[in-house]
Amino acid sequence: MVPGFQAAAIASGMRYANRLDLALIVADSGEQTAAAGVFTLNRFTAAPVELCKEHLQAARPRAILVNAGIANACTGDEGLQRARETARMTAEALHIPTQTVLVSSTGVIGQQIRLEPVAEVMPSLVEALRPDGWEDAAHSIMTTDTVPKMASTRVELGGKTVTIGGIAKGSGMIAPNMATLLVFVCTDAAVEPDVLQYWVRKGADHSFNCITVDGDTSTNDSLLALAGGHAGNPVLKDTQSPESRLFGEALSAVLLDLAKRIVLDGEGATKLIEILVTGAPDTAAARTVAYTVAHSPLVKTAFFGEDANWGRIIAAAGRSGVPIVPGRVALFFDETCVFRKGTPVDDPGVEEKAAEAFRRKEIRVRLDLGLGESDFTAYTCDLSYDYVKINASYRS
Amino acid sequence: MVPGFQAAAIASGMRYANRLDLALIVADSGEQTAAAGVFTLNRFTAAPVELCKEHLQAARPRAILVNAGIANACTGDEGLQRARETARMTAEALHIPTQTVLVSSTGVIGQQIRLEPVAEVMPSLVEALRPDGWEDAAHSIMTTDTVPKMASTRVELGGKTVTIGGIAKGSGMIAPNMATLLVFVCTDAAVEPDVLQYWVRKGADHSFNCITVDGDTSTNDSLLALAGGHAGNPVLKDTQSPESRLFGEALSAVLLDLAKRIVLDGEGATKLIEILVTGAPDTAAARTVAYTVAHSPLVKTAFFGEDANWGRIIAAAGRSGVPIVPGRVALFFDETCVFRKGTPVDDPGVEEKAAEAFRRKEIRVRLDLGLGESDFTAYTCDLSYDYVKINASYRS
Repeated sequence: MVPGFQAAAIASGMRYANRLDLALIVADSGEQTAAAGVFTLNRFTAAPVELCKEHLQAARPRAILVNAGIANACTGDEGLQRARETARMTAEALHIPTQTVLVSSTGVIGQQIRLEPVAEVMPSLVEALRPDGWEDAAHSIMTTDTVPKMASTRVELGGKTVTIGGIAKGSGMIAPNMATLLVFVCTDAAVEPDVLQYWVRKGADHSFNCITVDGDTSTNDSLLALAGGHAGNPVLKDTQSPESRLFGEALSAVLLDLAKRIVLDGEGATKLIEILVTGAPDTAAARTVAYTVAHSPLVKTAFFGEDANWGRIIAAAGRSGVPIVPGRVALFFDETCVFRKGTPVDDPGVEEKAAEAFRRKEIRVRLDLGLGESDFTAYTCDLSYDYVKINASYRS
Repeated sequence: MVPGFQAAAIASGMRYANRLDLALIVADSGEQTAAAGVFTLNRFTAAPVELCKEHLQAARPRAILVNAGIANACTGDEGLQRARETARMTAEALHIPTQTVLVSSTGVIGQQIRLEPVAEVMPSLVEALRPDGWEDAAHSIMTTDTVPKMASTRVELGGKTVTIGGIAKGSGMIAPNMATLLVFVCTDAAVEPDVLQYWVRKGADHSFNCITVDGDTSTNDSLLALAGGHAGNPVLKDTQSPESRLFGEALSAVLLDLAKRIVLDGEGATKLIEILVTGAPDTAAARTVAYTVAHSPLVKTAFFGEDANWGRIIAAAGRSGVPIVPGRVALFFDETCVFRKGTPVDDPGVEEKAAEAFRRKEIRVRLDLGLGESDFTAYTCDLSYDYVKINASYRS
């Protein structure tokens, strides 16, 4: 998928029998590789997240090992030691320093990962590395996900074609058991680590930090990026150069693509809903209103029921804490205005058009507050029977 | 239920055919009556809420008219005028000033209430008033509620027995369509309006402001209180006197009783869950953690599935924004400690005891943060298939 990178996956048997559950991504670029990471803000940080932060500080990581099935969260010092040991085993097999390996885990929390299965399959995993191993890797990191998630794009930088590609998993925003958000993105762009970190953070803010399935964030959420430089573009050293901005936009696009795939594969989701709040006094207010609407179980069940229920959206916005002025608010389903000046619009045809918008797979809602110039877009999914089924009946 | 008060309900046919949908509560105490109210903070305030605030400022209200079926919210000036007209009709029939009538509505939003049905049944409604009319009144205000909700208690004040009794409706905390929270409480205590207001506010903070079904608050949420003075106790004029505190506690108990009934009748609810957060640095932090846990769809579905899933509770607490120190946290299901010092407790029998606690109808969860002396209790219900069913399929 991305020149200069290889990937592979294997069935280690650590928790599942006979399914891919261990992935490895390696840059060919050695010490030239730039790495960056964005991690969960949850106070109960999983051991692999701790180790990634440590290695990103200490070295220029160039490999990522991911296991699915056990999250290695709430596992104490023993968990950190085991995470470190998996990095060491990977480094040994690849003949690189331990600190240049990043590790990531998803799965049940409160259990220790098992080292023997990793040790046993490591030689075969390294041997399986190949440029087109991404689909296997994308499959191997799935838990409650129903489809693997991959996205890529190309952009011209200084006359060279740069590729950015990534894989992701995530189904509930959390589910400490099995539905962590993990994203691994690679590029052949030549870019300094701090510039990469800047755009990864920026891209996360405009993608993964705009989505919600159930409002939860996991102990393991991680976004890791590696840049190898095979494209041969002039090295991006400044976050604000035109080339750097082009790179940042392309990276953001890949991350948003992956983020939308995650929402649409949200636990029990049948629809992708875009909540655009405009006319807010500032971005924070726009974000608060957008998320209050996007998290409301009443709004989400209305989407599932294909009920163009403007009242639930208005009421959620009204309780968001933002000092909304009811008479200035306007609400649109696609391009159809259904509510303005404090009362519903009762033009002929409005109800039918709104109902039509709600029957689509992707629904666009715009709420204009009429108070200022700022906006924010949140992406969410509907709340269905299957969300309850998946989360009430499932813990293995 | 409360000496000195009469209640009645009637089928007006305003929206439903052949069911009680209009209630009237009247104090016999005339100008001696004290009234108080606590209302929704939603910015889209319904017309009856606006009118109640106006009348509480201007007069000493002594009657409450409630209709179920149409919420009179998002109805503009016309809605306010119609609310005012229902108060006027009630006042005329009772031979009291219009400003002494409070009105309350629950039901679908964006529609105007109809005045003719109210005018037509008003004489019969007034004629039906009687001291034991409370059960009819409790029935008439139901919408998605499955059971009527009443509670009462007695307390000795200055050698006199004082009664406090109330009715409530509410099923989702909102559902702008049909599931507003309405509470009407009456007492024969002699109490000054500002003292009544003080204890009603206080009581709401320790009851209705501690519960959540789905995190939403409606455009119509109202708690109205009337005090008639028939008990003959020395008038409560000071919020801090011992008698006044006794009254406040008794009022709080009635409100908490009603609040728990509402949670247990929450849309699709099968269990009542108490989330007690202790050891917090301050009450705000305790409240934030308690509500983050109480609102988490993952936690609520685990309760429905009777899955003693400590990981979801820990992860929700960890993302609450409160600077939790993982090593200090302890989590209890009833009296059983399931998590401490950053890892699960694996003593023999813990899992079985936790599972047992989760099979009960009422579940008690205690999360000790180990950071301070403050605590907060939130009450919530589980998230079931029926919640989705009720809210996805329902809008009439």
